[in-house]
Amino acid sequence: MPILHQMQMSGNCYKVRLASRLLNIPIVLKDYGLHDGSTRTPEFLKLNPNGRVPLLEYEDGRLLPESGAILFHLSEGTRLQPKSAWDRAQMLNWMFFEQYSHEPYVAVARYWLTFAKPEELEKKRHLVPEWHAKGNAALGVMETHLKTHDWFAGGAYSIADIALYAYTHSAADGGFNLAEYPAVSAWVYRVAEQPGHVPLEARR
Amino acid sequence: MPILHQMQMSGNCYKVRLASRLLNIPIVLKDYGLHDGSTRTPEFLKLNPNGRVPLLEYEDGRLLPESGAILFHLSEGTRLQPKSAWDRAQMLNWMFFEQYSHEPYVAVARYWLTFAKPEELEKKRHLVPEWHAKGNAALGVMETHLKTHDWFAGGAYSIADIALYAYTHSAADGGFNLAEYPAVSAWVYRVAEQPGHVPLEARR
Repeated sequence: MPILHQMQMSGNCYKVRLASRLLNIPIVLKDYGLHDGSTRTPEFLKLNPNGRVPLLEYEDGRLLPESGAILFHLSEGTRLQPKSAWDRAQMLNWMFFEQYSHEPYVAVARYWLTFAKPEELEKKRHLVPEWHAKGNAALGVMETHLKTHDWFAGGAYSIADIALYAYTHSAADGGFNLAEYPAVSAWVYRVAEQPGHVPLEARR
Repeated sequence: MPILHQMQMSGNCYKVRLASRLLNIPIVLKDYGLHDGSTRTPEFLKLNPNGRVPLLEYEDGRLLPESGAILFHLSEGTRLQPKSAWDRAQMLNWMFFEQYSHEPYVAVARYWLTFAKPEELEKKRHLVPEWHAKGNAALGVMETHLKTHDWFAGGAYSIADIALYAYTHSAADGGFNLAEYPAVSAWVYRVAEQPGHVPLEARR
């Protein structure tokens, strides 16, 4: 069974747990701590020189990091990817948008405001206004799309929705107010109503 | 003919120009300025609410932003993508790595140190050490891979190499020293020797 090297409260790891649950792909979870440096040990850096989770490890030793690449791989040819090449390109558009324009602000604000040690947060406190400005800009881009679409790509729930859901539905942890984004709020509920959905806290 | 909305000196736009040249896909360039706010006008935000280039616009009005998504779309089914699903996942792994762990430091340092107005740079000067630390970490991850591989995915030149080449070969603009990374340096030359290669400065 493939091993998912992960942190339970990481949205990037949640994306993989949720997709694997929806696709009935069994995985074993191997947990790492937020504050214990366990993804920077020599042993872990041999598995992923970039020192990050999620990392998927197959029984034959093959390794795949990066949540976007893992989502793509697990879902190739399934209902979680659109059939047409154009719609797949749009799906990847939103997945790259999430990692470049959304996660570095929405997820980073959540980490520092909810999970970091208080003395560490104080060193980052001056960055909070920039995280909120850029995170709100990303939520605004999502709102514009969702005003006229139920889903991000191909007219159906896909891994683009999973990628954007992870840190959007938990954005309040970073001080964001989803009530300002009614189309995003409605989409968050739409995702959570999908058959087989599991919350971030669930182990599988 | 598709229009590429672009900035000439942007590495993200260069990726698309290079791929389109290698694949003999004709495109028309529409240029935007670095400092004139032309990607934040109401007209441009209608095309891409995220206010960024590159943006590919087809004659029928279809729009695709995000360099990674454009690269993927232009090269689906071509020699610039590996044939096997596993190798394609590795290709995407490196493309997501580039946008999350490389570009925000290597490209951002290049922008501020080479292209920003001097008075603007002074406001960012305190961030240079962090950009250099994280950018060098990303170059180190590339070095580890390239010590034992000629290319990033599937044993052949692919869009993962194009994605990483754009800001790596120009990293000196941001104060990075590629001489510290011999395997990366050799790979930079390997990419530039590919038939049909065009430099960043070229219009096509």
